[in-house]
Amino acid sequence: MLSGPRGGDALDAAIDEHDALGFVSVGCGPDANVRYLTGREFDAHVVYVRVAGESHLRVPSTIDTPEIPGVSVRIDDKPAGKAAAAVLADAAADGTVLAPRTLPHDAALHLESSGYDLVSTPVVSEARAVKDDDERAAIETVQRAARRGVARAAEILAAATNDDGTLVWDGAPLSTERIRRQVNVALAIEGVDAAGSTTVTAGESGDAVVLHPGEPVVVSVQPQGRDGYRGALARTFVVDADGGWERRAHVACDAARDVALVEGTPGADAAFVGSEIRAETAAFGFSPTDEVTRDVGGGIGLSVREAPPLDGDAELAVGNIIRVRSAVSDPGNGRIELADVMAIDDDGPVFLGDPPTSLDPAAWSQ
Amino acid sequence: MLSGPRGGDALDAAIDEHDALGFVSVGCGPDANVRYLTGREFDAHVVYVRVAGESHLRVPSTIDTPEIPGVSVRIDDKPAGKAAAAVLADAAADGTVLAPRTLPHDAALHLESSGYDLVSTPVVSEARAVKDDDERAAIETVQRAARRGVARAAEILAAATNDDGTLVWDGAPLSTERIRRQVNVALAIEGVDAAGSTTVTAGESGDAVVLHPGEPVVVSVQPQGRDGYRGALARTFVVDADGGWERRAHVACDAARDVALVEGTPGADAAFVGSEIRAETAAFGFSPTDEVTRDVGGGIGLSVREAPPLDGDAELAVGNIIRVRSAVSDPGNGRIELADVMAIDDDGPVFLGDPPTSLDPAAWSQ
Repeated sequence: MLSGPRGGDALDAAIDEHDALGFVSVGCGPDANVRYLTGREFDAHVVYVRVAGESHLRVPSTIDTPEIPGVSVRIDDKPAGKAAAAVLADAAADGTVLAPRTLPHDAALHLESSGYDLVSTPVVSEARAVKDDDERAAIETVQRAARRGVARAAEILAAATNDDGTLVWDGAPLSTERIRRQVNVALAIEGVDAAGSTTVTAGESGDAVVLHPGEPVVVSVQPQGRDGYRGALARTFVVDADGGWERRAHVACDAARDVALVEGTPGADAAFVGSEIRAETAAFGFSPTDEVTRDVGGGIGLSVREAPPLDGDAELAVGNIIRVRSAVSDPGNGRIELADVMAIDDDGPVFLGDPPTSLDPAAWSQ
Repeated sequence: MLSGPRGGDALDAAIDEHDALGFVSVGCGPDANVRYLTGREFDAHVVYVRVAGESHLRVPSTIDTPEIPGVSVRIDDKPAGKAAAAVLADAAADGTVLAPRTLPHDAALHLESSGYDLVSTPVVSEARAVKDDDERAAIETVQRAARRGVARAAEILAAATNDDGTLVWDGAPLSTERIRRQVNVALAIEGVDAAGSTTVTAGESGDAVVLHPGEPVVVSVQPQGRDGYRGALARTFVVDADGGWERRAHVACDAARDVALVEGTPGADAAFVGSEIRAETAAFGFSPTDEVTRDVGGGIGLSVREAPPLDGDAELAVGNIIRVRSAVSDPGNGRIELADVMAIDDDGPVFLGDPPTSLDPAAWSQ
C-alpha cells in the first residue's frame, strides 16, 4: 500500500545495531521524514516514536486524529520532547535514543533531561534513498504528469506567432507568466500539484515579461503526486533559434545528460557522477566556475532534494531515483537547462519516460 | 516590497532586550520563518543570522546564490551551526544567541560548542502574527483565487444532473476527484498554487468516489500565492438537500462563523474566541466531544497554522489574520464545514471577501 508507513524495519535494525531503546522524529510542519514513516502528511507539530518494534504517533488535539494501519496514534498536546519521552517511558526509563540530526533542539533537551541519551542517525534518509516498487511507480506517475505540463508549454510556444519581434499567442502577447499558469492547469488536469515549483524563465535576466523569438525559454516543473512523491522535468525551448550560443549550450547540456546514463551505474560514486556531468558540460567551451551550474541533482522522492546528492559522499545503489540536471548560464544569452528523473535499475540507469530534449517546441509537442 | 526581507527590527529589539549578540535560524527545506526573514523560499539547508543590525544568509553551493536587498548572501557548505558561528565570530567570540526553539539540534550543539549560549525566542512567530499592509494584500489576493476555486466546484455541482441516484456532469458520473482537479485548474488559472491542500470529500466515510444527491460535499482549498502567503476557504454543498441533519448542522456552523465576527475584536483572548465558536456550534444540539471539530483555526500567513492559534494563550491584535473554521461530523450523515479568513482591523474583524455560505451550489455559483 503506497500511503502506508515505511521504514520500520530499517529503524529496528539501526536500534539493534546501536543497542538503543528507540527512535524519535519530530515534524513541525510538512516533513518528508514523518510522511515517509507514517504515510501521511501533517501541517502540525507531530511526534513519531519507534520502540519495541512498534510505531507511535502523537498529534495535537487541533488536528483530526488519523487512523494509520500499524501505527498507534494518540492525541498529546505536550511539547514534542515530553510527548516522546512519555512513549519511551513505557519501555524503559533511560537508554540510548536515535534521532535525525535535525531533531528540534527543544525536543532534544526534553529527551535528555528525561534521562535519554541522544545519538543522531541518518537511517531515515538512507532508507528513503532506496525506493521500493510502489514508490518508483508513484514517481513514474508524477513524472508522466510533469511531461504533460512541459508539453503544454511546448504546444503554446509552437503555436505562438512572431508579431514584429514579440511572440503572440491566443490573441495577446505571450509572457512567461501566461505559460506558467497554462503549465499548472495541465498539471492540475493530470491530478498532480504544481507544489509552487513551476518556473518559466527567459531573457538575459531570467524574468522577461513578454517573450521574443530567439530567446531561450526554460520550463521547469517539480510536481507532487497525491501520495507526496515528486517529479522533476526541465526543458528549454527556443522559437526560431538562430543556431548560435543556445545551440552550443543545448548540445553541451544534452551530452551531459547522456553522461548520467553512462556513469550512473549501481556502485558508482555519486560525487564522481556529478563531477562528470559538470565536466562534460564544460567540455563544450563553458566556464566550470561561471557558466556551468553547480546543481547537477541528486535523490528525489518525497523531497526534490534528498539522498544521495550528486555532490556527496555516497555510492549509487539499485533503487535510487535521481534528479539529473545540466545547465549553462550566460549573462548575455540567458540559460539553457535540462532536468530529468533517472532510476538506478538492476541493469543500469534509465530516464523515467525519457522525454525528448529538443530545443524546438514544435518537435516536442507533436 | 512584498518579497523583501521582514522581521529585522523585531529581531534587533529582542536581541537588545536579552542583551544578546545575535539571532540564528536554520531552514532544512521549505521553512516559513526563513521565507519571512529573507523574502525567498529555499528547498535546502540555509542559515540566517542577524547580528549588529545586519542580516546574513549562508546557502549551500548547490543552489543558485540569490541576490536579496539588505541581506548579505554567501555560499557556505559547512554544517549549519558552524556556518552560523563563523558569521557570529566576526562580531564576538562568545555571548548569548537567540534562536527559535525548533532550531535543529545539531546546529544548536555546534553553536554551544563554539562558545555561544542559546536562548529560545518566539520573536519570529510573534512578528509573523501581525501582518503589514502588503502581507494583508497578498492574503486578500490568494483568498480571491480561493473563492474562484470553490466557485468552480459550486458551478459543477449546480450543473450536475441526477441520473437514477447518481450525480452526472459533463457526460460522466461525478466523483470527488473530478471536482478536485477542476478546482485546482481554476486555482492555476488564477496563478496560485493548490499547495497539495485541496480536498473534496463526501459521503459517510468522507471518501465517496461517485456523488449522490442529498450528500454533503465539503470543498476545502488552502492555496498559496507566488509570494508564499496562503488563503483558506471551505464550503459545503448539497445537491437536492432534503433539509434534515445537514440543514441543522449547516445553520450551526454558520452561526459559529458569525460568532468569530462578534468575539474576534482586538484584545480578545484567542482561546476564548475558539471556545465560543465551538460552544455556538454545539448549542444547536451537537456533541462538543464527538461531533464538533476541535480545529477552529488560528493565524494564517506564510503557513496555514501560525500564531495566534484559537486554542492558545494569546490576545488578538490589530493586524492578525485568522483562519476561522466551524465543522460538525456525524458517522451516519457526513460532515458540514465552513472555513474563512478573517482580518482583525482597527474597527474590528472582517471576513476577507466574505463569500456566501449557502449549502445550495446554485446560489453560490451565480
